[in-house]
Amino acid sequence: MARVINFNAGPATLPLPALEYAHNEFLDHEGTGMSILEHSHRGAPYAKVHAEAKSLLRELLDVPETHEVLFMQGGASGQFALAPMNLRGPDQSADYIMTGAWSDKALAEAKITGKAREAGTGKTDGKYTRVPKQAELDLDPNAAYLHFTSNNTIMGTQFHEYPESGNVPLVADMSSDMLWRPIDVSKFGLVYAGAQKNLGPAGITVLIFRKDLAARSPETIPKIFRYKTILDADSLQNTIPTFPVYMVRNVLRWVRDQGGAPAMERRNREKAGYIYGMIDQNPDYFRCPVELQSRSMMNPVFRLPTEDLEKKFIADAAAAGMVGIKGHRSVGGIRTSIYNAMEPADVQKFVAFAKTFAKNNS
Amino acid sequence: MARVINFNAGPATLPLPALEYAHNEFLDHEGTGMSILEHSHRGAPYAKVHAEAKSLLRELLDVPETHEVLFMQGGASGQFALAPMNLRGPDQSADYIMTGAWSDKALAEAKITGKAREAGTGKTDGKYTRVPKQAELDLDPNAAYLHFTSNNTIMGTQFHEYPESGNVPLVADMSSDMLWRPIDVSKFGLVYAGAQKNLGPAGITVLIFRKDLAARSPETIPKIFRYKTILDADSLQNTIPTFPVYMVRNVLRWVRDQGGAPAMERRNREKAGYIYGMIDQNPDYFRCPVELQSRSMMNPVFRLPTEDLEKKFIADAAAAGMVGIKGHRSVGGIRTSIYNAMEPADVQKFVAFAKTFAKNNS
Repeated sequence: MARVINFNAGPATLPLPALEYAHNEFLDHEGTGMSILEHSHRGAPYAKVHAEAKSLLRELLDVPETHEVLFMQGGASGQFALAPMNLRGPDQSADYIMTGAWSDKALAEAKITGKAREAGTGKTDGKYTRVPKQAELDLDPNAAYLHFTSNNTIMGTQFHEYPESGNVPLVADMSSDMLWRPIDVSKFGLVYAGAQKNLGPAGITVLIFRKDLAARSPETIPKIFRYKTILDADSLQNTIPTFPVYMVRNVLRWVRDQGGAPAMERRNREKAGYIYGMIDQNPDYFRCPVELQSRSMMNPVFRLPTEDLEKKFIADAAAAGMVGIKGHRSVGGIRTSIYNAMEPADVQKFVAFAKTFAKNNS
Repeated sequence: MARVINFNAGPATLPLPALEYAHNEFLDHEGTGMSILEHSHRGAPYAKVHAEAKSLLRELLDVPETHEVLFMQGGASGQFALAPMNLRGPDQSADYIMTGAWSDKALAEAKITGKAREAGTGKTDGKYTRVPKQAELDLDPNAAYLHFTSNNTIMGTQFHEYPESGNVPLVADMSSDMLWRPIDVSKFGLVYAGAQKNLGPAGITVLIFRKDLAARSPETIPKIFRYKTILDADSLQNTIPTFPVYMVRNVLRWVRDQGGAPAMERRNREKAGYIYGMIDQNPDYFRCPVELQSRSMMNPVFRLPTEDLEKKFIADAAAAGMVGIKGHRSVGGIRTSIYNAMEPADVQKFVAFAKTFAKNNS
């Protein structure tokens, strides 16, 4: 059928040119007589893909020489366990800013293997409808790192100013907003992101970390879980998921061709502007539960007057070729995931649909 | 260019019908208006793929009710760390049979987090040119499990009779020969395999384990690393690499259509027979360093009279459209990886090439 407008929260819509490029050479990668799926992770054709994916990330995020770009398996959930195992000294504690389900999980994993504490929370009246401000943070100056989730897919919140942590390395789970705009990588000890929102398909995790921190990997943890191992082997300590990296490469080429991170930011603010504009201009019908300054540019969420109307809204949208807008089961409502690949024109179509729906169902 | 004959050791050649199926619906999965890469891991279209991949594995390997089929990330190298973390009690030791680089790595990882010991070795005169026989094993009756690597890609050896371990659960790394023939799953506590040889592309690890063993997962290890977590969530505790699972599904359909595991065994013995036959019939030119009873049906290795001839052999084969036959850098020589997907007719072409080469380069 015709391509739908896909608001899935992740795995999510991918740039059509990145998909078409893969499709065109799927059975014969660059004239080598085999699919990229069949190439050795140690052969020249994959090595070229690997190097290009890395160098595109370096270029697009302006990664400084002090930092390295690496790939791992296991997703952000794997990093919830691995970051504390690698970065925390034997008696050291780590600080966590709480903003919802993902930070809850990250802190819980950190507590299993050592000391970790809450350094601030966005929870207000039992709900995570905002991210905490700098003045609200209670930071441990001896913490191994300060961890936060830069964007929260379930609640629709996002940090627009990153926490200041002084000499304590900043560690960020950017799974759902990596590369949504330029960032100052030098401020971070570690940034990690499952690829399946802004960067590519599921199956690969991108890490950007300060090289000197990798030396912290203790020898008491399995070698395959040490950041030092991954760093020393350029992510090829064992067989890497070659196709997911290949798709990330294709997506990053598209980001570059669009104008890079600054173009992504303009594009994403434009799209979010359409949706939040519609909400704010129709306050009697649409309601965003998120504090104004904490609104996500990736996952705008909103409610309709009743749950029955939300059900009808979701069904009518699907009939009009717009899918994936049902809010997370833990919070309900509507969620529109509008990652980098989502086209502004498609968001405009959605907004037009929503306005008509509001008029016809009041 | 025309499709080459691909002897890569892994990632490896895939069945052409499995690739073509993926290619045909790459941009529009089953008429849903999006690629399988863009589908949610929690949506109905992927759920169908997931369930089918699992049920095909159950069917093709005749997995009993006592066992569950699961998927994880991280490859066999991840399991080298995770199997001991999950299956070994606090003061328990685990037994390892040594057959080369992969068992070396598995034992080294196991020793980092607890007790583990060698329970036998195939090392003879400093080389792993055979697998040990049952009578040579020195088994700990209180071991948490007995671990072995069923096929050794680097050395070209394979267990043709699996070790007997009494009441001690058997744990096997079958990355390079899973589903090469029928197996009696009931004899195993855990079987694991990176998909990228016999089962699909890189990026997904298949596990078959006895469900009662999952209860051993201690709560002192991160939740994301517990087999119990994976079992309870049906491998969907976090975002699964959807496309690698999809490709495994496609490959398994092909295995089923060929006649299942018995057909794979006939096919694999036929292919290995061509290569070993050529070696044995030309003992003055080709030499297999592996003991007769330990020869691998997946990765036959052999030497030519000189290293210069081996170089020429590899170059001439490539010119004739046969690639990936260079032996592992640690041992040299020639290695022909002839996993399930390799066509018997293509092995015959290779053997014809090799015989001609021997005649012309004596």
